[in-house]
Amino acid sequence: MKIDVKECARLLKEHNNILILTHAHPDGDTLGSGFALLRALLKMGKTARVVNDDEIPAKYGYLYSDLQPLSFKEEYIVAVDVATENLLGNLQHIYSGKINLCIDHHMTNTQYADNVLLRDAPAACEIVYDVVNELGTEIDSKIADCLYTGISTDTGCFRYASTTAHSYRVAAKLIELGADNGLINRKMFETKSKTYVNLERLALNGLELFCNDRVAVITVTQEMYSETGSNEQETEALAPLTRQIEGVEIGITIREKKDKTCKASLRTYESVNAADLAKFFGGGGHAQAAACRFDCSVEEAKKRLIKKCSEILK
Amino acid sequence: MKIDVKECARLLKEHNNILILTHAHPDGDTLGSGFALLRALLKMGKTARVVNDDEIPAKYGYLYSDLQPLSFKEEYIVAVDVATENLLGNLQHIYSGKINLCIDHHMTNTQYADNVLLRDAPAACEIVYDVVNELGTEIDSKIADCLYTGISTDTGCFRYASTTAHSYRVAAKLIELGADNGLINRKMFETKSKTYVNLERLALNGLELFCNDRVAVITVTQEMYSETGSNEQETEALAPLTRQIEGVEIGITIREKKDKTCKASLRTYESVNAADLAKFFGGGGHAQAAACRFDCSVEEAKKRLIKKCSEILK
Repeated sequence: MKIDVKECARLLKEHNNILILTHAHPDGDTLGSGFALLRALLKMGKTARVVNDDEIPAKYGYLYSDLQPLSFKEEYIVAVDVATENLLGNLQHIYSGKINLCIDHHMTNTQYADNVLLRDAPAACEIVYDVVNELGTEIDSKIADCLYTGISTDTGCFRYASTTAHSYRVAAKLIELGADNGLINRKMFETKSKTYVNLERLALNGLELFCNDRVAVITVTQEMYSETGSNEQETEALAPLTRQIEGVEIGITIREKKDKTCKASLRTYESVNAADLAKFFGGGGHAQAAACRFDCSVEEAKKRLIKKCSEILK
Repeated sequence: MKIDVKECARLLKEHNNILILTHAHPDGDTLGSGFALLRALLKMGKTARVVNDDEIPAKYGYLYSDLQPLSFKEEYIVAVDVATENLLGNLQHIYSGKINLCIDHHMTNTQYADNVLLRDAPAACEIVYDVVNELGTEIDSKIADCLYTGISTDTGCFRYASTTAHSYRVAAKLIELGADNGLINRKMFETKSKTYVNLERLALNGLELFCNDRVAVITVTQEMYSETGSNEQETEALAPLTRQIEGVEIGITIREKKDKTCKASLRTYESVNAADLAKFFGGGGHAQAAACRFDCSVEEAKKRLIKKCSEILK
């Protein structure tokens, strides 16, 4: 059932021992949403915990490093920024069909939860901001850091066309409440490890253009990780680079996973709907940023994607 | 004399045939300030014009492409976002000592103008926003585009630590007034020409680290422009890359000019004041982004800069 912010806050107030699920391959918005909500619930005296199927990249440490993970038997399960249950990774096998509440901003949300607070917003954290306010919890600097992180990361640091005046206003408010915007953006956008810099160099050297230079493809293999000391987590930052070359309408980053399957990150401009493209391959996302998985080699996935792209661009 | 926004608006209202000077090697803030002010003055029925010593990069075309440059004998000269007269380039030989009004946000401003509206702000456009409001001119979508451009470019798209809650609020207001934030940020930050992509690849391949990897240096020579088809204008975008490598405190980009002199762009974090470093070599700027010129070769400039950096980092 679709619910509003008031009802969402009422449900959270009513429950305890709350487990907060974030999506696999976590980003700043799912983690920011999860830890902001966690902190608000803890301030209300509740017991709660955030879980994720993957290891959380070290750069997000400031979101939770001061917290002790609590052990308890969950009584209420909340998913944040999770459009479909399969985005939970392996957690879906445990929690599928059992999720009580979902707070999300993906309009492709499959409404798998009993109650869904869904709004078309640049970041789930903008909705969580409203929920925390509705809960009546004071937003301290730590909660502000979490919420700012989600808004900043999901808008490409306020860069994407989807960023609204409201996003900027919430950000202004969060900075006033103590969000350390400079440090957060530096961690999220301005800091590249030497291993990543080497991966980026390698990846860009192998960048290929297709469909009259309207499609750019970067592929990242396990071999490139060995060569550079980089890893899959760091690959996330490559995706936006594909779209930046003048004339490119679809940017694709295909990363090979350890089990030799692969994942493609899709970035587009207005002319192409990335979510539709991802959906064709069983994935999902937003109009200009989406992703899908392939049970085949990088080369095969590339072929399939380019075939579909050339159909779309006709 | 230092003046406030009210007095600045009064002076502008009092005069006509206004020449607006922007700094050489123009960026989004000086151009955004100049054209926003120009548009406001034109709406008031005044005659005015923006001038710059250099050719304005094509990507800024939307700031002024709908305007016809007016020909007139200037009666009042205004400089925007110009900290010192020598930043006017060759225009300083014509206008030095004759500038009536300066609107600026560099606290290093030498107060060369008769009247100076100076405030420590992330962008000159935030101050021009106040001036336009004080003039009583309605901010239309074109003026909003100009002002948004300056704020976005001078804050690295709201990324730098110097970005304030106020910057975000003004941006929100400008978006509501019609600023096309998505398109502007795409033009300013998300679009790389193929020639630039090649220059970046070449520059990053030549990146060197000094002082225990605390200083990163990129050098761009005229030969690299020939090889890639890129040019000096495009080099601006390289400067932020130097600071992004983990552990780097000073990022330096030295570009060789046609006359074999060179210019260094300096980027730092809190630990080092870039303006002080630039000042040592006769330049200027902000605490974390500054620039200076050298009448010597790139190699010699690099030597001098590294020597000074190693002293500072001791």
